[in-house]
Amino acid sequence: MTESPLPWPKLSSRHDPSLILFRPRWDRLVNPRTSQPMERLVLETPDWVNVVALTDEDELVLVKQFRFGTSRVTIEIPGGMVDRGESHADAARRELREETGYEARAWRYLGAVEPNPAFHDNLCHHWLATGCKRVSEHLELDAGEDIVVYREPLASVAERVRAGEIRHVLVHSALQRVVDLFGVSGARRAD
Amino acid sequence: MTESPLPWPKLSSRHDPSLILFRPRWDRLVNPRTSQPMERLVLETPDWVNVVALTDEDELVLVKQFRFGTSRVTIEIPGGMVDRGESHADAARRELREETGYEARAWRYLGAVEPNPAFHDNLCHHWLATGCKRVSEHLELDAGEDIVVYREPLASVAERVRAGEIRHVLVHSALQRVVDLFGVSGARRAD
Repeated sequence: MTESPLPWPKLSSRHDPSLILFRPRWDRLVNPRTSQPMERLVLETPDWVNVVALTDEDELVLVKQFRFGTSRVTIEIPGGMVDRGESHADAARRELREETGYEARAWRYLGAVEPNPAFHDNLCHHWLATGCKRVSEHLELDAGEDIVVYREPLASVAERVRAGEIRHVLVHSALQRVVDLFGVSGARRAD
Repeated sequence: MTESPLPWPKLSSRHDPSLILFRPRWDRLVNPRTSQPMERLVLETPDWVNVVALTDEDELVLVKQFRFGTSRVTIEIPGGMVDRGESHADAARRELREETGYEARAWRYLGAVEPNPAFHDNLCHHWLATGCKRVSEHLELDAGEDIVVYREPLASVAERVRAGEIRHVLVHSALQRVVDLFGVSGARRAD
């Protein structure tokens, strides 16, 4: 394994209902089964993109970063939010360049998933980028990012997924459209 | 297709930062790259479970429900939150029984994923339940649920995933450990 970003020292912690990544909205709805009105929460969220970025040597371009939700350094594929007015195709190219310094020879759309239709209103779009090459050593990181970029053979990454070292479901979802992560070819039985 | 739950009429909508499904927490952290302190949001979230529930006829037990985030009726596998003090194994059995009225002959753990390590601190545990049979016509639904249960052959559900009719990434993630949803056997090329 390569170098890893450092864990972020925690100075303090407080509970506060204001948010940044999302815009919380309460909808007042009627349950048609009971005719009972109730309020339900929606976190309005911009669409997300992530990128399966392969070099000509069949290596994946990966990012390691400290994640605030789980307080752990994760291995992920590059990705981020689609900016207002930006297409998800453009966002995929921008995130790859900003987060890794790589550009690709060819792009193919892999489809979209709902991160969680219970409370998010957004999609995460998956892209495949091939023929990736590093074009810049300079990463355009914002103040909230500290990223280490590295490459790893695709087969080895699939092994890390099976071993539970890579657990981000949106990373699995994108990779799964390129490689059969779990080696299943039909239904498996529990009994 | 079978009957579908009705869309829920919206009476009104308001923005309010208070939450129920999560407990928002702001952590004050230092970015080791810049030594700059900053606040980052964590949504403290209970673990989730979902269940790939198969009958002896290789049919999946599925639930249709109106989802508030996307304002659409979705097709999903049964699942929900792990209660405080409950094991995820027990939660899987409980959610299957409460949401569908089914019980299983055998259970096998399929592993866990991080729904989003950027802001959630939880895991979603996937379970495979086989030999499923309906033991009750009565569903134990809370006031916020209106669910239609039906069965569909596993192969036909995989086709729905490929067609984009089933898009919930946590549903894909569980199913993917039982059947190769996207029919990939190695890396695919964009060029």
